[in-house]
Amino acid sequence: MSRHDGRENNELRKVTIERGWSDQAEGSALISFGKTKVLCTASFTNGVPRWMAGKGKGWVTAEYSMLPRSTNSRMDREAVKGKVGGRTHEISRLIGRSLRAVVDMKALGENTIVIDCDVLQADGGTRTAAITGAYVALADAIEWGREKKFIGKNSRALFDSLAAVSVGIIDGEPMLDLAYVEDVRAETDMNVVVTGRGLFVEVQGTAEGAPFDRRELDSLLDLAVGGAADLTALQVASLAEGAPGSAAAGN
Amino acid sequence: MSRHDGRENNELRKVTIERGWSDQAEGSALISFGKTKVLCTASFTNGVPRWMAGKGKGWVTAEYSMLPRSTNSRMDREAVKGKVGGRTHEISRLIGRSLRAVVDMKALGENTIVIDCDVLQADGGTRTAAITGAYVALADAIEWGREKKFIGKNSRALFDSLAAVSVGIIDGEPMLDLAYVEDVRAETDMNVVVTGRGLFVEVQGTAEGAPFDRRELDSLLDLAVGGAADLTALQVASLAEGAPGSAAAGN
Amino acid sequence: MSRHDGRENNELRKVTIERGWSDQAEGSALISFGKTKVLCTASFTNGVPRWMAGKGKGWVTAEYSMLPRSTNSRMDREAVKGKVGGRTHEISRLIGRSLRAVVDMKALGENTIVIDCDVLQADGGTRTAAITGAYVALADAIEWGREKKFIGKNSRALFDSLAAVSVGIIDGEPMLDLAYVEDVRAETDMNVVVTGRGLFVEVQGTAEGAPFDRRELDSLLDLAVGGAADLTALQVASLAEGAPGSAAAGN
Amino acid sequence: MSRHDGRENNELRKVTIERGWSDQAEGSALISFGKTKVLCTASFTNGVPRWMAGKGKGWVTAEYSMLPRSTNSRMDREAVKGKVGGRTHEISRLIGRSLRAVVDMKALGENTIVIDCDVLQADGGTRTAAITGAYVALADAIEWGREKKFIGKNSRALFDSLAAVSVGIIDGEPMLDLAYVEDVRAETDMNVVVTGRGLFVEVQGTAEGAPFDRRELDSLLDLAVGGAADLTALQVASLAEGAPGSAAAGN
Amino acid sequence: MSRHDGRENNELRKVTIERGWSDQAEGSALISFGKTKVLCTASFTNGVPRWMAGKGKGWVTAEYSMLPRSTNSRMDREAVKGKVGGRTHEISRLIGRSLRAVVDMKALGENTIVIDCDVLQADGGTRTAAITGAYVALADAIEWGREKKFIGKNSRALFDSLAAVSVGIIDGEPMLDLAYVEDVRAETDMNVVVTGRGLFVEVQGTAEGAPFDRRELDSLLDLAVGGAADLTALQVASLAEGAPGSAAAGN
Amino acid sequence: MSRHDGRENNELRKVTIERGWSDQAEGSALISFGKTKVLCTASFTNGVPRWMAGKGKGWVTAEYSMLPRSTNSRMDREAVKGKVGGRTHEISRLIGRSLRAVVDMKALGENTIVIDCDVLQADGGTRTAAITGAYVALADAIEWGREKKFIGKNSRALFDSLAAVSVGIIDGEPMLDLAYVEDVRAETDMNVVVTGRGLFVEVQGTAEGAPFDRRELDSLLDLAVGGAADLTALQVASLAEGAPGSAAAGN
Repeated sequence: MSRHDGRENNELRKVTIERGWSDQAEGSALISFGKTKVLCTASFTNGVPRWMAGKGKGWVTAEYSMLPRSTNSRMDREAVKGKVGGRTHEISRLIGRSLRAVVDMKALGENTIVIDCDVLQADGGTRTAAITGAYVALADAIEWGREKKFIGKNSRALFDSLAAVSVGIIDGEPMLDLAYVEDVRAETDMNVVVTGRGLFVEVQGTAEGAPFDRRELDSLLDLAVGGAADLTALQVASLAEGAPGSAAAGN
Repeated sequence: MSRHDGRENNELRKVTIERGWSDQAEGSALISFGKTKVLCTASFTNGVPRWMAGKGKGWVTAEYSMLPRSTNSRMDREAVKGKVGGRTHEISRLIGRSLRAVVDMKALGENTIVIDCDVLQADGGTRTAAITGAYVALADAIEWGREKKFIGKNSRALFDSLAAVSVGIIDGEPMLDLAYVEDVRAETDMNVVVTGRGLFVEVQGTAEGAPFDRRELDSLLDLAVGGAADLTALQVASLAEGAPGSAAAGN
Repeated sequence: MSRHDGRENNELRKVTIERGWSDQAEGSALISFGKTKVLCTASFTNGVPRWMAGKGKGWVTAEYSMLPRSTNSRMDREAVKGKVGGRTHEISRLIGRSLRAVVDMKALGENTIVIDCDVLQADGGTRTAAITGAYVALADAIEWGREKKFIGKNSRALFDSLAAVSVGIIDGEPMLDLAYVEDVRAETDMNVVVTGRGLFVEVQGTAEGAPFDRRELDSLLDLAVGGAADLTALQVASLAEGAPGSAAAGN
Repeated sequence: MSRHDGRENNELRKVTIERGWSDQAEGSALISFGKTKVLCTASFTNGVPRWMAGKGKGWVTAEYSMLPRSTNSRMDREAVKGKVGGRTHEISRLIGRSLRAVVDMKALGENTIVIDCDVLQADGGTRTAAITGAYVALADAIEWGREKKFIGKNSRALFDSLAAVSVGIIDGEPMLDLAYVEDVRAETDMNVVVTGRGLFVEVQGTAEGAPFDRRELDSLLDLAVGGAADLTALQVASLAEGAPGSAAAGN
Repeated sequence: MSRHDGRENNELRKVTIERGWSDQAEGSALISFGKTKVLCTASFTNGVPRWMAGKGKGWVTAEYSMLPRSTNSRMDREAVKGKVGGRTHEISRLIGRSLRAVVDMKALGENTIVIDCDVLQADGGTRTAAITGAYVALADAIEWGREKKFIGKNSRALFDSLAAVSVGIIDGEPMLDLAYVEDVRAETDMNVVVTGRGLFVEVQGTAEGAPFDRRELDSLLDLAVGGAADLTALQVASLAEGAPGSAAAGN
Repeated sequence: MSRHDGRENNELRKVTIERGWSDQAEGSALISFGKTKVLCTASFTNGVPRWMAGKGKGWVTAEYSMLPRSTNSRMDREAVKGKVGGRTHEISRLIGRSLRAVVDMKALGENTIVIDCDVLQADGGTRTAAITGAYVALADAIEWGREKKFIGKNSRALFDSLAAVSVGIIDGEPMLDLAYVEDVRAETDMNVVVTGRGLFVEVQGTAEGAPFDRRELDSLLDLAVGGAADLTALQVASLAEGAPGSAAAGN
């Protein structure tokens, strides 16, 4: 059995990270998983919302959105419709919750970081690409805060790294990193968020077609953990460069 | 180690289902998991939205909402705020997607069923109670459609049953069916939707505190599958009665 | 002439009040007028909105809403439509204004009580049932405030009780407490809010069919005053019990 | 006891009707009750909304609004706030419902008339002025429809006329047509809509301060019926002129 | 070539200004350009929004709106649609920006003036009529602030006057002050805002049909400057009267 | 006098056009003016909205938006605020109106093209960059429609090209193509949209500081016409390449 683009079942698409893409944000990354392209920016603000003040803790939140023509047929803008859709809400919440799982809010201090993940082009896996890119933007924004002395010099605000990937079952076969043409055919679809140490932060499996059994679930988790490790290596390489640059991996 | 209400770690709260609570809806159930009470109604309409017409297939969708004072402190109404919140959207989508996983849309024919799950009182596990109660309301609405001849006499529109339960890890111990006081302390929180045959429809695990490992994930899935089997038995008993009545299980 | 359910023209439907239905709210009542069921909760907050602070006065307000399938055919949720409808606004305002007419805001002190009236099932007379039930919830919330010492021990925050009932003219005959099948046929429809002492707080009469004359108006007011006295007696009985319990009256 | 502007208790303010104020609308009237000025337009459209089509009946509806600086201090625009407030909704519904009470929808045929009542300046009694002016605009719009042959030549679409006035109790004395300075002091406030034949269409009495008794209610109704008769006479005079002109009454 | 109403190409319609039309606002003017009628009010508030406080500067802003039946066919209300349309936003911003160009915010001091321009009847040129009338309302509101001592006695808060007019090219001929029937036929449409000294504040030219060349642009600017001078003279006359009165000019 | 980046007063920033940036849209261009980067996509749909059908004419419309962190400090998303702001509306309308000025709607036939201009990074001149890039995307979308035979082979749907540029006066000196640091200091700011033949489509000049005179207006127009000619040349070069590629110009 072969995939539409010739990949192995356990192979990622070509993944690239243009770290520091934005001249405006404190941290940023333009991440691509094949044709999926997501611009992630991290905006650092000294201070927290009033209701959180005085507790010595920071806050990280995220917003996800798709450009209207990031997809094959144009979608109406949520701003024009006057409301944020359920899927957008759900993904924004997922990204923010996932990132907070690797941040020590005490070490961050009373600072707020807002992550924006805007999908410029969509070809499946936008939410997992967003999380993977957002981690890089977040790391740079925290470094910026340290340089500006908003965060203590020895504070370890990030205690682990974070990557995410989609997996799914197509015609009975578990596969890693689904492109859109695969995603629409998947019987089961799972998004997995994993830390650099290999622990789970989110496991979201959904039977799109037939319900799945425990063995299938296990296979999917194995694939996801492997893919996440590759993504972690790419994040490490990207962040290792002195100044924001870019790194690429995959086929 | 003992739970705040004396339950075993693998024990459900007292669960009751008042099937046929509503005089208005085609199917309904008022379900309680301890103090959590959710009114589930299923509204059957002959016909489908225009964009689906002519395909010989039906549609099932769901909306979840909490009464403003279902919780310990009053929340603002979403209608007054003018928008549906992210959590509400996310849960509504989860309920609808889960139910659709056991419905054969061809067998349902061009009919629409809207499920409403309104939380009258909340004490943890409202989304899983909603799914479990919604299945009973859905089954009765489908039966109603069959009696009214909108669905074929021999159509098997429901090919499996569906129950859901929450599990979580508190102080390192996996536990079944978290009450609110447990939920806020949980390091990991998972909602699992399981069919009557024991297959997974949704697995949504989230690290609220520390990330979790594969062994913890496995323990949680074991607990959930056991709890779901008990709920399935209760649904079967409730639906076995000729006319809508009520059934109760648990401690 | 006989009514669809065999009642006399001056007879209420069976009315029941489950006082203290909610484990969460400071005061609550699930009230039924026949098949009409309204859950009324009263949420007590110490303090008032900023613009009212420092005047030594409290505030009471109300919100009314119908569950989407409380009615015979499903209505869209106002939260989903993104706005509160005119009828909902109008009834919420009526409930709040009526209750304020029996509250001494100085005696209440700088405390806020929000009344929520959610119609679980509708069969005519939901707004008057809501007011009648809300009074019981309000009385318990005020008592709660007194026990918590937010209200002075001897303050008489409630200086009268309050009940409401609908009346109407059908085929030329004035009738008390219209069920839905009667309401749609009524030429004139009137909602009357009366204090325990028999004074009027609101009189809202509307010609749905033919305009009405002074003699008809007088007959309707007579019926309403009689029905309100029965409801007052029921409220007194319900509130007389030491702990929140339930009371029932009517046919 | 004398009123702030020297009127008797049963005396209207100076009321003027500039019939045909608008060059655009099919019917219009700029009505003044003292400093209260309301521009009423009636827009006639051949046809009805799709859901009403084919029944041979017409429809009349109304919208009320206040200019932001019609009042003593500026109010925010509802369009800017993004929603119509409860009071606006309530009054719009009252105006539409009242006018429909004198229209024979069969005789109107499948035509729609939308009434807009925009308060240019407010000094109490805006809703009753709106109804009184709207009747004149409505009558001209129906006449326009007849001339254009959208309505049958002999159809009697309007079977009665309609006027409205406010009454209230101030310091224990019932008074007609309250100006704003009186309105804010009133213990009881009532809006009464009366047909040209003296029948009631709406009676809306509210205890703003102390609840009221039956004798007070009767006095208020007497005053209102008298004031409405004066307004009816003014409407008749205004409509008697061949072409839209203007008529004035009162002190 | 002659215009539909017999005017010369460089001739304004009959323009009238009813200064002080409102009994409520600190400054007001009902301005007419032929059948176009705009009610302009200026609301003066001592103080500025919190984010501007402490800088010793004031603020002037504007809102424009059309009554639903100001036009030939009825438009839906923006409040009912729940959002302000693009054209309304654009014109509100234009009016506010233009007026601010002749106000010395330091001299105004920490005071806020909100201009409301409500189009009661529309026949082309509503935005330019609004600006011309708003200037008169603004001048009176500033004078009111001076009398109330919110503005220093010798402060020169208005350092120039402001008038606006539309010009356009129809069948190749440049014309001043287009009525609606002309506006819809114009190839190019331009709105020009000019100070009393003849300087430009806004030049907004749009090719509705064919793009325009430099020579056409020059002709339009010449016409506009001439028309604005006439409007300035009318404003001066209107403001010269001791108490708010009215002034008229044109054909 | 020298500019912050060393440019001459009549010199554009470095302008680049990445034609065909998107794999999804029928036409697209990522355009940069210095650090300003705008992604323009053109979505071609066969057919027109129902209200336009049957007239044999097409439609072109546009939407503009800024990513929340395209600017120096993060802005709230309009989708989250639930409404499109006035500036966004105004610019969207400007882009759509400008493009329509060079499209022959008859030649386009019953097809709709929606242009999306999303500002990825902002450094002044985003609206003029958007128009300049949108023209390239539009041209490719029209070509796509011709290849797909939705547009007649010999139809000349685009009868001219279109470019736009900002100009302004800073410290009394007219300058071309303002960067953000210049824009905030400009006394007068003008956006000019010019066709490939040098005709004006839009001239929008605004006095941000002091009003401007005729001579200054003339200088600004001269600068704009020169800059637009350079942009036109760049568009021609970009579109001359067989397949979508990229072209660059400027310093």
